[in-house]
Amino acid sequence: MLGFKPGDVQLYKTALSHRSVREGADENNERLEFLGDAVLSAIIAHFLFMKYPYKDEGFLTEMRSKMVNRQKLNEIAVRMGLKKITIYNKLDTALKKSQIFGNTLEALIGAVYLDKGYKKTQQWVEQYIISNHMFTDELESIEINIKNKLYGWANKNGKSLTFVIVNESMEGGRRLFTIGATIDGEVIAQAKGFNKKDASQLAAFKAVENLGL
Amino acid sequence: MLGFKPGDVQLYKTALSHRSVREGADENNERLEFLGDAVLSAIIAHFLFMKYPYKDEGFLTEMRSKMVNRQKLNEIAVRMGLKKITIYNKLDTALKKSQIFGNTLEALIGAVYLDKGYKKTQQWVEQYIISNHMFTDELESIEINIKNKLYGWANKNGKSLTFVIVNESMEGGRRLFTIGATIDGEVIAQAKGFNKKDASQLAAFKAVENLGL
Repeated sequence: MLGFKPGDVQLYKTALSHRSVREGADENNERLEFLGDAVLSAIIAHFLFMKYPYKDEGFLTEMRSKMVNRQKLNEIAVRMGLKKITIYNKLDTALKKSQIFGNTLEALIGAVYLDKGYKKTQQWVEQYIISNHMFTDELESIEINIKNKLYGWANKNGKSLTFVIVNESMEGGRRLFTIGATIDGEVIAQAKGFNKKDASQLAAFKAVENLGL
Repeated sequence: MLGFKPGDVQLYKTALSHRSVREGADENNERLEFLGDAVLSAIIAHFLFMKYPYKDEGFLTEMRSKMVNRQKLNEIAVRMGLKKITIYNKLDTALKKSQIFGNTLEALIGAVYLDKGYKKTQQWVEQYIISNHMFTDELESIEINIKNKLYGWANKNGKSLTFVIVNESMEGGRRLFTIGATIDGEVIAQAKGFNKKDASQLAAFKAVENLGL
């Protein structure tokens, strides 16, 4: 799975240990997940920065959120085989179906980073995660369908979906909109953008993620 | 300001160029800001991970949001002298008072990262930003007062402040709460946490940030 020999084996053991079997903050993988999440985000930012030299920050932000959302990471983790080696309470059937494996993957990235440093982690993530599992060309076109998907889900479940302006402020001389996706009047996700289209698109993505669709 | 000699000078020029004077996505600092924001986040995550070996992920997340919120970064940028060298439309008086300098600082971090690599950026951020401007010991105790600050502001301005549960879901076998801070019934900030206290604390922080208090 790693393609290299781990140095500090204990780090990797911690990365694979879910809190359902290790209570202590220094024993389970949640701290490494916090670290790995941030490192992954930086690596993806760099990757996108280089891949799309003329795209603006709004596009880069949206692409990243498509690449590293919770559901996507969980799928990748399962495909990489992390479900088989994560140590968790298997009697808890809710855990089995939950998205803890994406968290394990982030923790593993945190472990690789502490063990081997940033540059090695970057190479590993680019080869084993991005190029094997994240198809940016496909992701570029997803945005067209995401609102439709959400409207379809709402319709099917007899829910009312609307997008509302949660907040409007000025930033750097531009109007910054916060758009919320609401289901039956309750905000389930929100996102910011310098125009309403971008913000509502991103809110739709987050809504789909939050709903686990 | 840097303490080292820049390699690729053009990168730093771009980092200092606000979109009010450079329209093109490849000419102004917004793409570098996107990159620098992510790199800074990873560096702070690593710093906190090492500094607090027994604190859980909730604590680390909260500390980071105190260290890198928009207002804080803007203050640091101004103290570092970035206001004087940022290239922006000075006829736009709104810009002068806005928080574009924090964005410039993030863009500068992005430029250092591309020019010198992660490790050098990490050293520079730790020395010139964290240890000079971010006092973690003070920040640890701020949380006690943040809700009071928000209630004080609401009271003074005749607004009604409440914290509401925006969403409740299961993650990894635990209940995950999304708490929203609302002003006169409008959600102005929200945050997630595995208990309501953490989530509402974090929502209060974001609210203070969004309101620019």
